[in-house]
Amino acid sequence: MNKYTIFIIVGTVMAGSCGSGATIETESDLVSLRLAANTYHQAASTKDRAAVVALYDENVLMVPPNADLVEKLEGVQGYRFGFLETPGVELQFEILRAEISTSGDIGWTLSIGDITINNPEGPPGRDIIRDFHIWKKQADGSWKVVVDMWNSELPINE
Amino acid sequence: MNKYTIFIIVGTVMAGSCGSGATIETESDLVSLRLAANTYHQAASTKDRAAVVALYDENVLMVPPNADLVEKLEGVQGYRFGFLETPGVELQFEILRAEISTSGDIGWTLSIGDITINNPEGPPGRDIIRDFHIWKKQADGSWKVVVDMWNSELPINE
Repeated sequence: MNKYTIFIIVGTVMAGSCGSGATIETESDLVSLRLAANTYHQAASTKDRAAVVALYDENVLMVPPNADLVEKLEGVQGYRFGFLETPGVELQFEILRAEISTSGDIGWTLSIGDITINNPEGPPGRDIIRDFHIWKKQADGSWKVVVDMWNSELPINE
Repeated sequence: MNKYTIFIIVGTVMAGSCGSGATIETESDLVSLRLAANTYHQAASTKDRAAVVALYDENVLMVPPNADLVEKLEGVQGYRFGFLETPGVELQFEILRAEISTSGDIGWTLSIGDITINNPEGPPGRDIIRDFHIWKKQADGSWKVVVDMWNSELPINE
């Protein structure tokens, strides 16, 4: 597996511990947004495919690097999440920044992911991913991902 | 120049002709958001560096693929925009989707860019870019880019 495969593995993983950008009015929404991001992270790290897919909006647009767009929940349901499919993946994510609209209906998170791919036959693979999500608040108050986009920090030829 | 250089060239370019996601209440904000995106596109296609930089928020976060993060307006002011620096670049962008919060303070656009790099000594280079912007409405009512992230649709080894 080359390192670009790793993009797919980690593309939709996030979690968080810090952030900025909230006004007092939107603080509780920002807290719930961070809880959603943590839920995503837990689902991914435990390889719980159903829980991961359940966090996407019906009208999601996924933008994997060096691959076709994936559209709508049906597309995500059929998507091969690398972090679910590939053995030996360890994920460690941190939210770099999170913000929310004053109306509390749209929020976004940018996370930095430190990825290790353990390989019994050699040194582990590694990648640093910037994982971006736009979240849309649903009618029931929950947050779901409506845009999922990522890229790698590492040089192409490293 | 290899094709990955092109990522940098076009990373912050956008324009648009169609979209979705607005409610009636936010329609006028969505129109102004699209105007801002078109302004960006015009500035980029005419290689007007000052006009491009003027469209960024003070607290912008730029996420170029395979390169370090660029933070705050000062970072953008010092950023080497490939589409400004590299001769022979032609850009053709279309907004794939644009949405806005009900409060009208945050909006986002995802554009598809068809990039040609004319080369007098051989066939032109080409890339397809997915260019994502979060826009934040300023105190004066203008829109500025607070997140700028992109990746390529083309396979790494193509």
